[in-house]
Amino acid sequence: MKILAFGEVMMRLTPPDYKKIEQTNTLDMSFNGTGVNILSGLSRFGYETTLLTALPENHVGSAAAGHIRRLGIDDSNIKFSGHHMGIYFLELGYGNRPSQVTYLERLKSSFGESTFSDDEVKSSINDADIVHICGISLSLGDGARETAIKTAKIAHEQGKMVCFDFNFRPSLNENRAYEWMRTQYERVLPYCTILFGGKRDLMGLFDDQEKSLEQLIQKLMNNYNQIKYFSGSNRAINEGTEYLSGFLYTDNTLYESPEYLITLYDRIGTGDAFAAGVITGIIEKWSAEKTVDFATSNSVLAHTTFGDSPVMDKEIVEQFMNGELGNVIR
Amino acid sequence: MKILAFGEVMMRLTPPDYKKIEQTNTLDMSFNGTGVNILSGLSRFGYETTLLTALPENHVGSAAAGHIRRLGIDDSNIKFSGHHMGIYFLELGYGNRPSQVTYLERLKSSFGESTFSDDEVKSSINDADIVHICGISLSLGDGARETAIKTAKIAHEQGKMVCFDFNFRPSLNENRAYEWMRTQYERVLPYCTILFGGKRDLMGLFDDQEKSLEQLIQKLMNNYNQIKYFSGSNRAINEGTEYLSGFLYTDNTLYESPEYLITLYDRIGTGDAFAAGVITGIIEKWSAEKTVDFATSNSVLAHTTFGDSPVMDKEIVEQFMNGELGNVIR
Amino acid sequence: MKILAFGEVMMRLTPPDYKKIEQTNTLDMSFNGTGVNILSGLSRFGYETTLLTALPENHVGSAAAGHIRRLGIDDSNIKFSGHHMGIYFLELGYGNRPSQVTYLERLKSSFGESTFSDDEVKSSINDADIVHICGISLSLGDGARETAIKTAKIAHEQGKMVCFDFNFRPSLNENRAYEWMRTQYERVLPYCTILFGGKRDLMGLFDDQEKSLEQLIQKLMNNYNQIKYFSGSNRAINEGTEYLSGFLYTDNTLYESPEYLITLYDRIGTGDAFAAGVITGIIEKWSAEKTVDFATSNSVLAHTTFGDSPVMDKEIVEQFMNGELGNVIR
Amino acid sequence: MKILAFGEVMMRLTPPDYKKIEQTNTLDMSFNGTGVNILSGLSRFGYETTLLTALPENHVGSAAAGHIRRLGIDDSNIKFSGHHMGIYFLELGYGNRPSQVTYLERLKSSFGESTFSDDEVKSSINDADIVHICGISLSLGDGARETAIKTAKIAHEQGKMVCFDFNFRPSLNENRAYEWMRTQYERVLPYCTILFGGKRDLMGLFDDQEKSLEQLIQKLMNNYNQIKYFSGSNRAINEGTEYLSGFLYTDNTLYESPEYLITLYDRIGTGDAFAAGVITGIIEKWSAEKTVDFATSNSVLAHTTFGDSPVMDKEIVEQFMNGELGNVIR
Amino acid sequence: MKILAFGEVMMRLTPPDYKKIEQTNTLDMSFNGTGVNILSGLSRFGYETTLLTALPENHVGSAAAGHIRRLGIDDSNIKFSGHHMGIYFLELGYGNRPSQVTYLERLKSSFGESTFSDDEVKSSINDADIVHICGISLSLGDGARETAIKTAKIAHEQGKMVCFDFNFRPSLNENRAYEWMRTQYERVLPYCTILFGGKRDLMGLFDDQEKSLEQLIQKLMNNYNQIKYFSGSNRAINEGTEYLSGFLYTDNTLYESPEYLITLYDRIGTGDAFAAGVITGIIEKWSAEKTVDFATSNSVLAHTTFGDSPVMDKEIVEQFMNGELGNVIR
Amino acid sequence: MKILAFGEVMMRLTPPDYKKIEQTNTLDMSFNGTGVNILSGLSRFGYETTLLTALPENHVGSAAAGHIRRLGIDDSNIKFSGHHMGIYFLELGYGNRPSQVTYLERLKSSFGESTFSDDEVKSSINDADIVHICGISLSLGDGARETAIKTAKIAHEQGKMVCFDFNFRPSLNENRAYEWMRTQYERVLPYCTILFGGKRDLMGLFDDQEKSLEQLIQKLMNNYNQIKYFSGSNRAINEGTEYLSGFLYTDNTLYESPEYLITLYDRIGTGDAFAAGVITGIIEKWSAEKTVDFATSNSVLAHTTFGDSPVMDKEIVEQFMNGELGNVIR
Repeated sequence: MKILAFGEVMMRLTPPDYKKIEQTNTLDMSFNGTGVNILSGLSRFGYETTLLTALPENHVGSAAAGHIRRLGIDDSNIKFSGHHMGIYFLELGYGNRPSQVTYLERLKSSFGESTFSDDEVKSSINDADIVHICGISLSLGDGARETAIKTAKIAHEQGKMVCFDFNFRPSLNENRAYEWMRTQYERVLPYCTILFGGKRDLMGLFDDQEKSLEQLIQKLMNNYNQIKYFSGSNRAINEGTEYLSGFLYTDNTLYESPEYLITLYDRIGTGDAFAAGVITGIIEKWSAEKTVDFATSNSVLAHTTFGDSPVMDKEIVEQFMNGELGNVIR
Repeated sequence: MKILAFGEVMMRLTPPDYKKIEQTNTLDMSFNGTGVNILSGLSRFGYETTLLTALPENHVGSAAAGHIRRLGIDDSNIKFSGHHMGIYFLELGYGNRPSQVTYLERLKSSFGESTFSDDEVKSSINDADIVHICGISLSLGDGARETAIKTAKIAHEQGKMVCFDFNFRPSLNENRAYEWMRTQYERVLPYCTILFGGKRDLMGLFDDQEKSLEQLIQKLMNNYNQIKYFSGSNRAINEGTEYLSGFLYTDNTLYESPEYLITLYDRIGTGDAFAAGVITGIIEKWSAEKTVDFATSNSVLAHTTFGDSPVMDKEIVEQFMNGELGNVIR
Repeated sequence: MKILAFGEVMMRLTPPDYKKIEQTNTLDMSFNGTGVNILSGLSRFGYETTLLTALPENHVGSAAAGHIRRLGIDDSNIKFSGHHMGIYFLELGYGNRPSQVTYLERLKSSFGESTFSDDEVKSSINDADIVHICGISLSLGDGARETAIKTAKIAHEQGKMVCFDFNFRPSLNENRAYEWMRTQYERVLPYCTILFGGKRDLMGLFDDQEKSLEQLIQKLMNNYNQIKYFSGSNRAINEGTEYLSGFLYTDNTLYESPEYLITLYDRIGTGDAFAAGVITGIIEKWSAEKTVDFATSNSVLAHTTFGDSPVMDKEIVEQFMNGELGNVIR
Repeated sequence: MKILAFGEVMMRLTPPDYKKIEQTNTLDMSFNGTGVNILSGLSRFGYETTLLTALPENHVGSAAAGHIRRLGIDDSNIKFSGHHMGIYFLELGYGNRPSQVTYLERLKSSFGESTFSDDEVKSSINDADIVHICGISLSLGDGARETAIKTAKIAHEQGKMVCFDFNFRPSLNENRAYEWMRTQYERVLPYCTILFGGKRDLMGLFDDQEKSLEQLIQKLMNNYNQIKYFSGSNRAINEGTEYLSGFLYTDNTLYESPEYLITLYDRIGTGDAFAAGVITGIIEKWSAEKTVDFATSNSVLAHTTFGDSPVMDKEIVEQFMNGELGNVIR
Repeated sequence: MKILAFGEVMMRLTPPDYKKIEQTNTLDMSFNGTGVNILSGLSRFGYETTLLTALPENHVGSAAAGHIRRLGIDDSNIKFSGHHMGIYFLELGYGNRPSQVTYLERLKSSFGESTFSDDEVKSSINDADIVHICGISLSLGDGARETAIKTAKIAHEQGKMVCFDFNFRPSLNENRAYEWMRTQYERVLPYCTILFGGKRDLMGLFDDQEKSLEQLIQKLMNNYNQIKYFSGSNRAINEGTEYLSGFLYTDNTLYESPEYLITLYDRIGTGDAFAAGVITGIIEKWSAEKTVDFATSNSVLAHTTFGDSPVMDKEIVEQFMNGELGNVIR
Repeated sequence: MKILAFGEVMMRLTPPDYKKIEQTNTLDMSFNGTGVNILSGLSRFGYETTLLTALPENHVGSAAAGHIRRLGIDDSNIKFSGHHMGIYFLELGYGNRPSQVTYLERLKSSFGESTFSDDEVKSSINDADIVHICGISLSLGDGARETAIKTAKIAHEQGKMVCFDFNFRPSLNENRAYEWMRTQYERVLPYCTILFGGKRDLMGLFDDQEKSLEQLIQKLMNNYNQIKYFSGSNRAINEGTEYLSGFLYTDNTLYESPEYLITLYDRIGTGDAFAAGVITGIIEKWSAEKTVDFATSNSVLAHTTFGDSPVMDKEIVEQFMNGELGNVIR
């Protein structure tokens, strides 16, 4: 089983010791992105993974590729061109203080300006079974957007399962009407099998403030009947304590996971951990109940690990889900 | 709007990873003190700040000055003389284990032994609107104490608003009767507009165990009728959870903030964050309610940041106060 | 008062920032083991301590000895031979994610393969008052096991107080029937005065699933009537919160400490902190109530410090036990 | 005496331990640029300094401003706008292996896209005595280039001394004929008093391969007779050992410093250290001989310090120049 | 072009700042070995590489595999079994003080105890063009030795080019007569095309103290006429300065590189960098002169980089070889 | 063989990466002093060592004691009193740039203000064979000075060998005539057997600018005929390269070591390494030639290690002295 993801790779720079940028002169460097994160999770669960992306043709690009390989992701579909990549600073929050993300120039990156020919896309998809498209690509410049849509289309035509997450980022679309974004979504949706998103995404899509989540999903699936799964997660806060639960809509039914108490160390990438869990359940043909519980558990544990990319072993996630995790694993 | 603070700068040395000193051979170095901390907070809130102090005339002193400038504080009123500065080690606590402060020699520091002429003080105060005097100065040797009192007097005479915090440190006064300390306070109080302290400070001042906080403040203001504000914060612990609230007495009324749940990373300097918040409210002519809520919120957030010196942006504090802070700020 | 411990020293390698091994290329190195840990705790409580063990005859062995001396433990009974020592990686957990221990080769270590002559053992015991034997030694190769039993026997014959902890590690005994382990325990028990263990250890020993803890201890003491103390601790989890309590059985009575809420930073070695507390109470001839409360308090605080080896001062433990600890110790 | 510099601020990210980017996940962060570097040097020599530049309006921008203040440079002329800044990675070389610089997107930075009104420039120049313009600005986008030329012009008109360095970067001008660059230089030269450059710059300017350095400078000064100083440094390598010497042409005479043996730790910014030294000599009205020797000495010492920005004290430079530096300064 | 290497992976732990182990509690972790190193070099030169080895079936093993992938080496032929891996500490030397290597248990590692079936070996070799066998494998336990010889044999039979380095380690053979080692070499030599070694290796092999290097190589090639290349490097020290030169014997001729002055940061793995250079020349069908010069240049540069595994780009090596490297590469 | 040293312990704080204090917020912490350093060296050469000193009675003092034990020095003669210790910052130099030492308050330290009773001194000396007195003690306050002289006297009376080094520090005696210092030396000299110093010390002592080193030593020994050894080292610089040689005067003869080329990483403490070497030769009854060569070699190697306290093994020093050290020790 092999999964290909198309998506941007960004450099994340994190001050140590919960410091703000102005308090440090040392930074932790890692390389992330929705595609990288989902593949990192899937790689740890035992599947082959490969990333379709563009990286700078310099030492920063090779360092990024090395980091991606280290996560267990094949780099043979990475194109090296241009000289820039998106960078973001993460000031890790603590308790009452939220984490803070500061983006530097993202649009002029190798990825944002990359173009891929049909042949390049086809050859990269060839031996993949599942193809994931990160929705942020639609906001990142013409090159990235068109490749995203092209990849979805080709994958669908070749009978691959296509996943898509909405991941709408207002900050990347400040000069555009939402209408424009909706048009892009509508170009991709006809090719998708698995969708990751939430009620807000669907309300935006349909300009529809009233329906329930279930009704919105059903409406979507009526419009695009090749869509088989719609999945996402919800947070609830109760007297200072945070809880997470996931849902998976399939076969006309909404399945919901138990609510898990969150212990928070690093929140970034936890949605991607959830997505990796759902894809795993679908690959393994688990029941929807088990799938959404596993995905939520993986996301809950991702809140406790450093970095955006999920790094938990499958057995640990299953033990957590089954309440079997002790204090120390020896 | 420009605030001048008179106070000691100390070097803080912190072991990493919540270690004790004996467990490490690496230390984090920063430079702090009530004056530095309050000005750091005010600088982030958009005001001009300047520090009146003395630092060693060597590479340690220049490093300290550089650190202070980095915090956004003007260093043109710093005098370089002597060769020593106060140093303290902070072993950061964790949960059940409190933080532990170990002071090295503090009295023989450049600050403790510094003297400032009337002209030096006057010229430094000249373009300031508010002058803050740290009460610890009264316990740190004749030079520091006399400059503190002189600065308050001159500022008052020039019509500046004078702030003073009690900050009584028994460990610095082991060989003195409290009576002596009271006398020093009485030398400063006639010049003050804003006071930071608590019930214990006032009871000590009046040798009066019975009155309520409100009555004690009223008594104080009766004695020194130029005092306009008396402010401070209180902690409450309930079943292992800690809460913070602030109060501000002005216009014969005691205003109290809501109680906020504390999430604790680094407690040192949180009282200074509160004071910076109160001064901000007074500068901005906010209502007493908003002022004390903002100050308390700033203090609550200061519990979550590394280091003594407050580093939160004004918007974040306001969003916290209004319950608008999400999990991640992008 | 001087305590000798016989036990293995291992190198612990810990990734920083709660990272997993695969996420780092920097490690914190320390040297630990039940013997080291108990002696580290006792050393901080003011007693002379010495370790009987074997370390590699190379720079790693000398670094380990230096680390042990730094903890306040005499190293004059350490033998340098062989070239290997047990190593384990500790991936520190966070909230929902447990800590994870990965052992590398442990049996072929200098300690595992060491032998000590009767004279060597006798001379090391000579000026000790209490001798502690770590039960893991029984699983670590013939050399270590026979020295452990020999040391217990000689110490008992010389009228020293002998402590023993069960510390059964299934992973070290994968190829052995438990029956074999029981035989080894029975070789040591006739020489012991103080035992550390739990219900599971006693049930294993007697192959007896039904009796209460009290009954099991009484049965043990009936069989080995020189045993004076049996002590251990229990964890309870209630709605995501963890509590610790200790027990001490002596003079036909089971004494139990209050239940303390746990705040968890580093769990490893907390049982050894408990043992160090019990031994302290016995040395100081405290009441059983105070002894078990002090031991539990020491263990609770050990959950908040980095590293396996307890490093708390006696006064801090007593203040914690008496509810006198504030937020910051100055 | 106050010096204003106009120039770009870049973030420098340096792997530790002479590692390549691909070998690390930790980086040292600092903020540099010709303007920053020259002012850092001048600040240490006792002069007031201020930087005219643009930084991102986010936490990265404030961290940069803090870093600049720490260096002793006034930040009141910094404009905060845009969201990006130039970043470069420096892989420090060692012996046979040269250092390697990798630039990420530099043109779309806050600085590259900044514009300054005449009034903004005038008010920043107002209380400056000397104005330095970094030649790289001419290659960094229309905004930066036009501000550079405007600043030179206004400063010259106000009777300030204007410094300019050629600092030609082919990599920033890949799509332009050199002819274009020459035109830009010719727009600036009529306003300059002090020039930093070398034979190559002048040959490029005059398209003249044959003349000696002296003749070329004389030709330049004939064309632009307000130019008073032309200065630069030369490297020589002899059997693996590197030497540095400086020259200063003024009053129709070429003054050369002694050749100094280089010990190399961090080469970046050493030319800016030289420039800071020359400006110091001109301010202090030293002889040309002393000026160029001091500047060269400062540059030689800058090869031995971490970071681009000079941090040597004036006395140390003078002692070095006079051969009075011992092994340890106490 | 694809190269497979068979060899051990070891963990290297390096104290920072040129410290000895006893001076630190922080270590740099990397994963190395002759096979890893040669493949790392070849990967940077643009070839596909894959490693045949065994790693522990735990988090340490996965971290090692991640590190190897990061270096650009395919990990699909790595077997996970056992729980131990060889570890060595490297105390980096400085000038007069040599580096010091301390090995912990190496024989009981996953690699030392691994066995590979004929089918496993065959399938791993299948799409390789060149196969490298590390001579240390012959000293590391029956499993590793027999797999090494089997791999050489199968590769030779399949018409692959087989490389072998002698790399004799007396410390791993303390209990064996050299005679035994010679027998093992004689089992491998009939399958080899390229040999890496020196005069000492050949004298040991033939028990022949007198012949020149050239005569010894010729004698070897007479005995094993399928050997096409014999290559190695020599060090010379002249008045405290060290020089390196390489040689390559092929077609009955001894080719020698120029002597290069060494600047030393980290010596370990520099022989492997040489070997990677020679293999590159053979792949590229360069002249023997160019091949040995390139290999020596790569080794010279490897003395200047942190870590055992070569990380230089091909262009940099060629520029060095051609004397074209400046001070800073931009 | 047991050596006792009387001397101050200081905390050394070192910025990383050859940075200046103003460039860092991280520091390396260690504990040093002439006594500590000499004992550290002797401990590595296999002798028992113990330190007579005073440390602060707080966590900083215990950390210092732990550091000293780690070096292999017995701490049972350390007195805990007061709350301060001397601190110095070391900015490590690089090539042309010298190291720079900045002292903070040193006189008010626990050591400077300590007093020891005759009984305390006697009991600490009791089982020592050699007693070393650091000359800096004479400049550090009455307490330290009188204890130094008392210790020398008592040791001499008990027939111990007494070592003394001049170590004159002008910066500690700014307000005193040198005459005063000479008087102090004259109080100690009658008890000494081994002296460490140089020509300058002797010229100061005798106010005698003309005599040769040999004549000066002979004059000293004529005055104090119990002095058996006078030893020290000299530096020479030749075209940028530095050389070290040692001398030992005994039995009316001046023995000189070869000149060794210095490779410099950390100069501080290298004189103490020399002294430890001389004492070793005297203990081992080596010839004067071997003694001075060994001492010089130890000092040469101490230039290559981090920290003030010598950490070389005896075998390595001997191999260096015999020219047998290769590039890597395995």
